[in-house]
Amino acid sequence: MGLEGRSLVSVWDLTCGEIRGLLEQAGEFAAAGGGGLGAGRILATLFYEPSTRTRLSFESAMLRLGGQTLGFAEAASSSVAKGESIADTVRMVGAYSDIVVQRHPWEGAAKVAADAASVPVVNAGDGGHEHPTQTLTDLFALQRRHGRLGGLTVGLCGDLKYGRTVHSLAPVLARFGSRCVCIAPPELAMPERFMAEVEELSGQRPQETADLAAALPELDCLYMTRIQKERFPDKSAYERLKGSYVVDRALLDRAPEHLSILHPLPRVDEIAPEVDADPRAAYFEQAAGGVFVRMALIAALLGLVDWPDASEEREPAQIAREQRRRRPQADVGACDNLKCVTHHEPGLAPDYLIVSDDPPLLVCEYCEWEKRPLPLSLESEG
Amino acid sequence: MGLEGRSLVSVWDLTCGEIRGLLEQAGEFAAAGGGGLGAGRILATLFYEPSTRTRLSFESAMLRLGGQTLGFAEAASSSVAKGESIADTVRMVGAYSDIVVQRHPWEGAAKVAADAASVPVVNAGDGGHEHPTQTLTDLFALQRRHGRLGGLTVGLCGDLKYGRTVHSLAPVLARFGSRCVCIAPPELAMPERFMAEVEELSGQRPQETADLAAALPELDCLYMTRIQKERFPDKSAYERLKGSYVVDRALLDRAPEHLSILHPLPRVDEIAPEVDADPRAAYFEQAAGGVFVRMALIAALLGLVDWPDASEEREPAQIAREQRRRRPQADVGACDNLKCVTHHEPGLAPDYLIVSDDPPLLVCEYCEWEKRPLPLSLESEG
Amino acid sequence: MGLEGRSLVSVWDLTCGEIRGLLEQAGEFAAAGGGGLGAGRILATLFYEPSTRTRLSFESAMLRLGGQTLGFAEAASSSVAKGESIADTVRMVGAYSDIVVQRHPWEGAAKVAADAASVPVVNAGDGGHEHPTQTLTDLFALQRRHGRLGGLTVGLCGDLKYGRTVHSLAPVLARFGSRCVCIAPPELAMPERFMAEVEELSGQRPQETADLAAALPELDCLYMTRIQKERFPDKSAYERLKGSYVVDRALLDRAPEHLSILHPLPRVDEIAPEVDADPRAAYFEQAAGGVFVRMALIAALLGLVDWPDASEEREPAQIAREQRRRRPQADVGACDNLKCVTHHEPGLAPDYLIVSDDPPLLVCEYCEWEKRPLPLSLESEG
Repeated sequence: MGLEGRSLVSVWDLTCGEIRGLLEQAGEFAAAGGGGLGAGRILATLFYEPSTRTRLSFESAMLRLGGQTLGFAEAASSSVAKGESIADTVRMVGAYSDIVVQRHPWEGAAKVAADAASVPVVNAGDGGHEHPTQTLTDLFALQRRHGRLGGLTVGLCGDLKYGRTVHSLAPVLARFGSRCVCIAPPELAMPERFMAEVEELSGQRPQETADLAAALPELDCLYMTRIQKERFPDKSAYERLKGSYVVDRALLDRAPEHLSILHPLPRVDEIAPEVDADPRAAYFEQAAGGVFVRMALIAALLGLVDWPDASEEREPAQIAREQRRRRPQADVGACDNLKCVTHHEPGLAPDYLIVSDDPPLLVCEYCEWEKRPLPLSLESEG
Repeated sequence: MGLEGRSLVSVWDLTCGEIRGLLEQAGEFAAAGGGGLGAGRILATLFYEPSTRTRLSFESAMLRLGGQTLGFAEAASSSVAKGESIADTVRMVGAYSDIVVQRHPWEGAAKVAADAASVPVVNAGDGGHEHPTQTLTDLFALQRRHGRLGGLTVGLCGDLKYGRTVHSLAPVLARFGSRCVCIAPPELAMPERFMAEVEELSGQRPQETADLAAALPELDCLYMTRIQKERFPDKSAYERLKGSYVVDRALLDRAPEHLSILHPLPRVDEIAPEVDADPRAAYFEQAAGGVFVRMALIAALLGLVDWPDASEEREPAQIAREQRRRRPQADVGACDNLKCVTHHEPGLAPDYLIVSDDPPLLVCEYCEWEKRPLPLSLESEG
Repeated sequence: MGLEGRSLVSVWDLTCGEIRGLLEQAGEFAAAGGGGLGAGRILATLFYEPSTRTRLSFESAMLRLGGQTLGFAEAASSSVAKGESIADTVRMVGAYSDIVVQRHPWEGAAKVAADAASVPVVNAGDGGHEHPTQTLTDLFALQRRHGRLGGLTVGLCGDLKYGRTVHSLAPVLARFGSRCVCIAPPELAMPERFMAEVEELSGQRPQETADLAAALPELDCLYMTRIQKERFPDKSAYERLKGSYVVDRALLDRAPEHLSILHPLPRVDEIAPEVDADPRAAYFEQAAGGVFVRMALIAALLGLVDWPDASEEREPAQIAREQRRRRPQADVGACDNLKCVTHHEPGLAPDYLIVSDDPPLLVCEYCEWEKRPLPLSLESEG
């Protein structure tokens, strides 16, 4: 198993075999504890924006492995105020610890840290871009509830436009042979890039609907997401939409018996408290499972466990994805995404990747925003 | 000893026998250390408002037991900014830890957490309501200084109106057979509810005086409190009163030799630094004792220690208190206390309890504020 | 070795023999790890202003020794908001821990804490005054790169007026028999007090120049410092000067092969990223070495290690320095430094020390600012 010493920026960094290995190890930790595997190791948590849930679950994971933690919970308590770069900070912290977990508001910040660090870096969220341990946690919950990761129909519901969890989950479900149904109002629809990615992976474009109740009967899992106010430029649209997709007692009455209801949490109004006691509510056990998943990941990246049967070979889907990604010959200028790390980290040039020729599609190597409109030179190149 | 798995919201949750058992255990930890009892256990500190002293003493206690800690030191670094409820947060953190310590600005927040959590919750202060480990720390200091908890005369001095420490201390002193003298200006007098409670418990209404020097000769212990600026709506009243009750060299000259001087700290001006070297000054050893008390409490709630001789039977005073508390038949509306958790936590209905029929007295089940004026329906019910 | 139980406020607290002993121990920890020496001990980090690098390196050091940590990362999360004094806070925290590390914005705050605490206190920076573990880290890097601390020529470059690291480093280099070259624009020149101190220690006044490139060929080490915007009253002067002293590829081409480049970090623009890969760049290994230095210091102050050959005798330079320092007979009033702790800590009288008679020179005992103009009474006394 080749995870030792590697970083985790995106779920795409892992093969399906590696993911299965991690989830199996997580199950063993859930059953038997951490066994002091991490004794003498230090995990650093660099949270440039606060996230109690994610930070505490990583810290709990490391402590339950017998290791130790240090770090900061928000940028104001850090050297960032003095203008230190992400790269310099992670180089320094890599000397103080054995593995680094970073959350950062700039999209692409995890790649910058992973490129600079001398120890493994885990992306605990870089803006709206990626949050791979959330995805592994989601998969662990599915595996535990349904006994498998393939052949499931998963309804992704709520904010599919801004919600990074569903952007990661939809493609990985396709890789495992499950399909998703996108349940959202048109304003919050799943972006085309992910629709196309799922279609390519599974040969099937995800079904889209705005009607949660109608979609419900065919689902194995309903994955709810919060409509996040802070992602909305237009607050009145938020107010109008936030109540549209709510799971309550009435909705449950029309749901299959074997349904599992997941949510990355925190929820606000989208799942009524009355649902918590229903056996189909799986979001608290999902959150609890996040500790075991992170124990498994930390143990794997530190080389504390070994799974002889986890396939290290890149999957065809990964290989195809990487082969599509090549640098354009023309200079295509700065990234359009103002939250992209290339606008903030000193000494960092924006890099672009061609991810599709037909239609031509160019994304920033760091934040993966699409370049729009495409530069004319590329139109001809593609 | 039935403390394993329980939460501590109020000192009233503990019998006198349980309190004696905790203090005895604290004494043993002070003498012999924690012995690694807590190895492999995690304590979570959820501090929605900062309190260095309380947080660090809990963390020190857990570390000295051989356990580990995680948590947050202020709400700004937490998910609270995203609107997560207290109940959801503590459910989540209960999956990351074995015991939760919570401080919260909303009154009644500790009960909400204890009701929702799957692990023991310790109230480390919920607004002006309760702070039971401070009270245990006060009792430990009395026990260590005077060798007993009964038969003492304790002067409670300073801000008796807003000071939650004295609201908890006065009744528990009565339960142990000690009496208190309330030393405060009329503006800061002990609220009637606590005066009546002590009178009922001890058969004697506490003596009240505004004259510290005159009360001094009869005291075994002088318990000073800070006149807290942040609790005063009228800042000019604060300025006028803050200098009224100050312990200095001159006052000490008139104090008994065996007096102990306690203070929950931090002090500002109410005890002059020149007093620190006097053998009667006991506030620093009191603070230091807080670590051993919290070690004992954590060990008891986690079931790491057992005291066969600690009485688990509810005391007559506890039983009488509980029996008095019953729900009114009429709906009495929202709680008048704007800092009550019922105004903030989603899905929480204010509950009221009748705690006295003559005179009729109704308190919020969460924050224990009195309902005033009483609803007419209740006047007739009582 | 008499370091057990002592505090470290200034590098002047240590003999050269003690420093050599610490660095040797640091080297052993770097080679062989901490060996669980600190098991069961607690280090408290009291950071009244944020400093990720320093705080995390102390925490990492304690964890790598097998100990534990607690504390706060900024004043807003602490009791300071309630007006508690430094002395009371450190007394309290000394009951919760075995050793205290304090960073504070007020100059002289470390002495106040060390005077009040019952456990060793390490100064992790008190305003612009002292930061002795940074100096030990600098010396460790020199020792590791050059194999010796004496006979070196060290260029101190950048902000020599406000940079506390160079104020500490220059005199200790003189004590070890190395010389420094001061490279700075006139506006940021090394203050006279340190020039005079080095001259007295070494018999030689440091060379001063504004021309980095010209000074480069004769240097063994180039110690770069950041021109810190926050120390500048005049922001336009900052903008004009900040680009003057930059190490880049072009400058490196003119530098000796055996040069080491140090920097206390964080850097902003004063060392170009292209320099990082050059073998002369030693600043990241310098930062990494800080963990081992702090391990050695913690172990020494806690009495966990013993070096029979480290000289405990005060050096002639230390003795001469102490003998010069005597209290003036006249009252010389308040300290002129508004950031001096004597203006903030309650009950603290400013103390002055005569440190030179010819010319007469008077410094505050806490922050060591010079009194200017001297009171007339002292002119006659001196």
